[in-house]
Amino acid sequence: MSISDAKLLSQGPLPDDEARWVKLTKITYRDPHGAVRTWESSERRTRPAGTDIDGVGIIAILDKPTGKELILQKQYRPPIDKVTIEVPAGLMDAGETPEQAAVRELKEETGYVGEAVEMSPVMFNDPGFCNTNLRMVHVRINMSLPENQDPKPELEENEFIDVFTVRLADLWEECKRLEAEGYAIDARVGTFAEGILTAQRLQL
Amino acid sequence: MSISDAKLLSQGPLPDDEARWVKLTKITYRDPHGAVRTWESSERRTRPAGTDIDGVGIIAILDKPTGKELILQKQYRPPIDKVTIEVPAGLMDAGETPEQAAVRELKEETGYVGEAVEMSPVMFNDPGFCNTNLRMVHVRINMSLPENQDPKPELEENEFIDVFTVRLADLWEECKRLEAEGYAIDARVGTFAEGILTAQRLQL
Repeated sequence: MSISDAKLLSQGPLPDDEARWVKLTKITYRDPHGAVRTWESSERRTRPAGTDIDGVGIIAILDKPTGKELILQKQYRPPIDKVTIEVPAGLMDAGETPEQAAVRELKEETGYVGEAVEMSPVMFNDPGFCNTNLRMVHVRINMSLPENQDPKPELEENEFIDVFTVRLADLWEECKRLEAEGYAIDARVGTFAEGILTAQRLQL
Repeated sequence: MSISDAKLLSQGPLPDDEARWVKLTKITYRDPHGAVRTWESSERRTRPAGTDIDGVGIIAILDKPTGKELILQKQYRPPIDKVTIEVPAGLMDAGETPEQAAVRELKEETGYVGEAVEMSPVMFNDPGFCNTNLRMVHVRINMSLPENQDPKPELEENEFIDVFTVRLADLWEECKRLEAEGYAIDARVGTFAEGILTAQRLQL
């Protein structure tokens, strides 16, 4: 049993009245010239009332003797039939703040206990196509705490996640290497790596 | 007439048989434990045959006396009823390479003539929700070329884009400032800024 054993068996159209998690929306809008136009969009059905985001992504950096390492995970994603390389992430529960969601998801998915120290603006995943969004939350992990000595994930029965770490300074090259091995790179990981690479090259 | 005059007028369900650009898909897959499960996904209908990506995003950096500046744009996006802050980007045309698409889109959207010098792995925008993806292409702009002295976009009749630039070293703070002004931050811009910030702080 390994994450790479997962695979797509079949796929077909999903009628709107069968869908429980996603939906299509037809939008009528006025463009900047005053013309009335339509647009097709997709949405999650699961965003809790009272929040403006679907979920959170988590930047959690471990201070290791070999350098600063970013916590990443491998997870099979049916929409693309590939194992992705992602940051820890998850959907909001009702009544949670983004910081609470990030600390909860990090503990569930990796076992690490941390503290939220910074939050990004709301980021839109693909705003010409859908309304899904998240905030990135930076979680500090105190490696001297007893609970962080041998962290154990607490996954749900239908979650399958492998946790690993990559040196931040090598993240761009690691993304290229992992893609060559057949993994799919999540946009948050790849673009974060691209920012690090650019800052290194241009000495920002 | 300004981009901020655009607004959503109404929205409602979009039946599958009316949709031309997007669709919902029901996926049956085998999970890593061998159990057969289903997943709901959304997709674009527009990906050209023969390519594995929907589009490209463009990192184009101008070398100005005040520092390195990233080309960004403001664009009204009906799925979120907001004006976004995005990198230049666009969908693939049939038969194009990602590099060709990036050079073409940059010229159309900003007027700048450039040369593709680096390409990211394929990045998946939200792989638990949809299969949409892109490659980021880095385009070098030679500011001494006559055609780059007074670049003029060549927008289609239904495209409305304002081009501007931000100092790379300030990108994270600018994202926060632009969000406070009511703009929506695209995930590529925000996560790229987050990578730069992290490299600066940790001196990677």
